Amino acid sequence: MCTLMNSHLEQLREKNIELTRKKIREALKEDIYTIQLASSIEDLDKIISKMLKRLRDWYEIYLPEISNRLQDNEQFISETAKSKSELMKKYKIKESMGGDFKDTEAMECQRKETLKMIEFRAEQQKKLEKLMEKNFPNITAVAGGLIGAKLIAIAGSIKELSEFPASTIQILGAEKALFRHMRSGARPPKYGIILSHPYVAESKEKAKSARKLADKISIASKVDYFKGRFIGDKLKEQLK
Amino acid sequence: MCTLMNSHLEQLREKNIELTRKKIREALKEDIYTIQLASSIEDLDKIISKMLKRLRDWYEIYLPEISNRLQDNEQFISETAKSKSELMKKYKIKESMGGDFKDTEAMECQRKETLKMIEFRAEQQKKLEKLMEKNFPNITAVAGGLIGAKLIAIAGSIKELSEFPASTIQILGAEKALFRHMRSGARPPKYGIILSHPYVAESKEKAKSARKLADKISIASKVDYFKGRFIGDKLKEQLK
Repeated sequence: MCTLMNSHLEQLREKNIELTRKKIREALKEDIYTIQLASSIEDLDKIISKMLKRLRDWYEIYLPEISNRLQDNEQFISETAKSKSELMKKYKIKESMGGDFKDTEAMECQRKETLKMIEFRAEQQKKLEKLMEKNFPNITAVAGGLIGAKLIAIAGSIKELSEFPASTIQILGAEKALFRHMRSGARPPKYGIILSHPYVAESKEKAKSARKLADKISIASKVDYFKGRFIGDKLKEQLK
Repeated sequence: MCTLMNSHLEQLREKNIELTRKKIREALKEDIYTIQLASSIEDLDKIISKMLKRLRDWYEIYLPEISNRLQDNEQFISETAKSKSELMKKYKIKESMGGDFKDTEAMECQRKETLKMIEFRAEQQKKLEKLMEKNFPNITAVAGGLIGAKLIAIAGSIKELSEFPASTIQILGAEKALFRHMRSGARPPKYGIILSHPYVAESKEKAKSARKLADKISIASKVDYFKGRFIGDKLKEQLK
């Protein structure tokens, strides 16, 4: 009798584990994958800036006159494909203070690898935007792929983002400033990562624009979560 | 008269600037270049660990059962070239808790790029070792290319390294522990980055081995700085 019950209990236990596994698997939806991709792009940004800094540091001892003249990173990395003598001719550097190293292959490799990393980041961003457009068309239409994905990443999931009020979305990414405000009474933040959206960045009244944009993103995220129809173009229209 | 003197002064000034430029250029010797290469390899180590962490994080939602079973990073990155079904078969995973994502291209790209980065780091290290062998044969024979270059990097130049006593070389890279010792009377560090040398790492009496090795490195650096003849093999012999 007792062994019979034990075997039943064992079966019940296994069934339970199976169901839980299934539930966990089903909870891992496309938004979780998208969060990983968005975070990996943020990683890549840091990696590229580290590699660029190293390349500039290296040029500082090879041809110090050039780093200052080429403030733009893309220009710097494409121009340094030229040889030292070519660069000196082009930028009219009579005499350089840089050292005469025999073998600069390692530096050239660092330059090429940095360039490859920049290209890789661009490819990954394209993939992210494609994914976002497919899975969250409304958020993407209003906020753009990268900002949309970052908002989902900070919220934790599309479900959580859709439950946030617009005023929370407005300051997502400015948690530090928010808590400083709550703790010490400093001025509250007016915008989080949506500041990098051109609608806010190029606006003269940034706080007002941020509020408007967050409002539309909030609506878009609710529609996307409940798989509603596409209203992204209308929301975008209302922003103008 | 006055204008004549001014023109002379002007000439003198220009000549001076020219000489200073030349002196700066001449001070930038191969060791400064080597320092950049060694630091770039340290950067790459951090970059690779960041990229690996991201890849593991990503697999945590795709096939969480696999990350734990493959603790070794190299094994992990080569095994994950296989498809999910292949991996599940090989590691006898009946049912995975990972999500079923339609498009995992971005994750696969991250894996490939991480692998490329590991290869790039290996290539750069080879270049460093070649450079070190050519310019600092004695240090390289005793300490190895990478550790030797890191020691030069911490010291600032081969000149400075050659002026350090062996006891300083022994704890280069453990500055934090040293200052903690000086400030609060905690136990002083017994070794710095030379701990990663097999002679110290595999020794049972690490502190003693570190002292011996630092002694030989100190001699080697003096010989290399003054461009003496090759005594690296003898120094190495004495360590045994």
